[in-house]
Amino acid sequence: MKKLINDPENVVREELSGIARAHGDLVEVHIDPHYIVRTDAPVQGKVALVSGGGSGHEPMHGGFVGMGMLDAACPGEVFTSPTPDQMEAATKAVDGGAGVVHIVKNYTGDVMNFEMAAELCRSEGTEVESVLVDDDVAVQDSLYTAGRRGVGATVLMEKIAGAAAEQRRPLKEVVDVCRKVNDNARSMGMALTSCTVPAAGKPTFELGEDEMEIGIGIHGEPGRERRKVAPVHDIVEMMATPIVDDLPFKSGDQVLAFVNGMGGTPLIELYIVFHELASLLDGRGIGIGRNLIGPYITSLEMQGCSITLLKLDDELTGLWDAPVKTPGLRWGV
Amino acid sequence: MKKLINDPENVVREELSGIARAHGDLVEVHIDPHYIVRTDAPVQGKVALVSGGGSGHEPMHGGFVGMGMLDAACPGEVFTSPTPDQMEAATKAVDGGAGVVHIVKNYTGDVMNFEMAAELCRSEGTEVESVLVDDDVAVQDSLYTAGRRGVGATVLMEKIAGAAAEQRRPLKEVVDVCRKVNDNARSMGMALTSCTVPAAGKPTFELGEDEMEIGIGIHGEPGRERRKVAPVHDIVEMMATPIVDDLPFKSGDQVLAFVNGMGGTPLIELYIVFHELASLLDGRGIGIGRNLIGPYITSLEMQGCSITLLKLDDELTGLWDAPVKTPGLRWGV
Repeated sequence: MKKLINDPENVVREELSGIARAHGDLVEVHIDPHYIVRTDAPVQGKVALVSGGGSGHEPMHGGFVGMGMLDAACPGEVFTSPTPDQMEAATKAVDGGAGVVHIVKNYTGDVMNFEMAAELCRSEGTEVESVLVDDDVAVQDSLYTAGRRGVGATVLMEKIAGAAAEQRRPLKEVVDVCRKVNDNARSMGMALTSCTVPAAGKPTFELGEDEMEIGIGIHGEPGRERRKVAPVHDIVEMMATPIVDDLPFKSGDQVLAFVNGMGGTPLIELYIVFHELASLLDGRGIGIGRNLIGPYITSLEMQGCSITLLKLDDELTGLWDAPVKTPGLRWGV
Repeated sequence: MKKLINDPENVVREELSGIARAHGDLVEVHIDPHYIVRTDAPVQGKVALVSGGGSGHEPMHGGFVGMGMLDAACPGEVFTSPTPDQMEAATKAVDGGAGVVHIVKNYTGDVMNFEMAAELCRSEGTEVESVLVDDDVAVQDSLYTAGRRGVGATVLMEKIAGAAAEQRRPLKEVVDVCRKVNDNARSMGMALTSCTVPAAGKPTFELGEDEMEIGIGIHGEPGRERRKVAPVHDIVEMMATPIVDDLPFKSGDQVLAFVNGMGGTPLIELYIVFHELASLLDGRGIGIGRNLIGPYITSLEMQGCSITLLKLDDELTGLWDAPVKTPGLRWGV
């Protein structure tokens, strides 16, 4: 295993030290339990957004804490759910009296722990609503999931709901915006290589020199099929067709097209993926109203990419365009 | 070779199509010859900045075209200098009557071709000044270079000089700002793995399963030494000590600390590098006034990182903080 780390046991702690040093103007990092919170939290009268999950997907979630996005993020160990005490502490730290939304990716551990934390917070008087993200069309159930996995739509939900909360919309409306994003977004991923969890020390799965995995999960969970590598034209068709057919997106729709790098894939390749995706959508009469291209929800050093399409309307477009100021996503300020 | 591409011969052309589709609000992509220009070019009365070099380092340079940074970028084939006709066409396209600065990384091909383009432009009445970037302390001469290579400081120079030009400073002052950045910046890189140039189809160099290369160039050029992989604490010391000793940076200095990913290294590791770098600088009494962490000058899918330190003063800090709106770097707008 070759990684820029010291002790595999200290990866998350040392990463958080780096985040704290680098982004002290935007976020505060709390130790014991671990959570990252915007420096001006709690924002009185604003609905607060809390998300979290295993580490190894950076910049998600810690990199999305700040004005216009998350109020707090709870990082677990690499590919391991954070614990209820992290979520409870983060929720209390950001509660500005208008309620808190938990954005939960659909993995068994995350769902269970966020549920426990929500119960604890409610019993002490904090209003908490949970929203599940389950946008991955690759497989119905998976290694750590009953039902579809939550992947790329999480990033879009955090941005869009974050803008809604910043407008001081009430709890129910912010939750509705979250659900609208999840209902209108679909994703699929693929991998050219595995990733290696530091504590495991060896690749999560094996792929031959000429193989790829279509429908991969963000923890290296098996996808739809393992097959010979192919031109990116064909790969994009394998990923985008099930996405477009699932919602279904139809001619005349405007979408946000999100081409995400898995961590080890360079930007030059992501732009080629985007070029192919744009051609495919052209052929179906689907317009790309907005786009996001880069590594935003990663799987350590995995090479590969995912595509997320979100059907846009004026409300979602306006919330997407609203200012955001986080370590990982920033515009308008 | 596993890559998200179609034909190795079309990588740059297809990438540029992707950039054109994704960022049409910020940049225009010209074909034959290839160059990327901000949509509002030429900006009358503003000094224009043009850079360029081989592709494979994305987002540099094309991703840094836009308000507050470059006016144009000329992408060559992967790891291959762009041609003088690209540079000449780009220079003419952005000439707003106040002169043009060529920002040239110190590689033999780039230097020669930019020189030829500058001569052509001058002979037709455009005022052109060239600035060389040669910040890499790893080796004195290298595979494609006489003298030190130009690496991470290029990104900082493009941002800082871009802000100076946006303030409508005259040509001489913008050139002075460029030279000040180069004089006050030092860099060094390292690699855990090689990269593969698409047209070559095989890794640029071989590294054993337990080896790393300290002082690597951004095209995989040999560095200072090949050695056994080590904890990141030691790696950062091997990179940062020669940087700090070269300028020399001294106790009480404020620096911009730039931790750059080589393309295949995930953000979680870059934050650990930054954590170690901050500790090392603490020990020397050097303060980190600003930072930049992420993949900004890459080497395809190479795993590894580079560190650049730029000694700050009020002028450089103010220009760094000024608004910028490009595909690859954006704040304040």
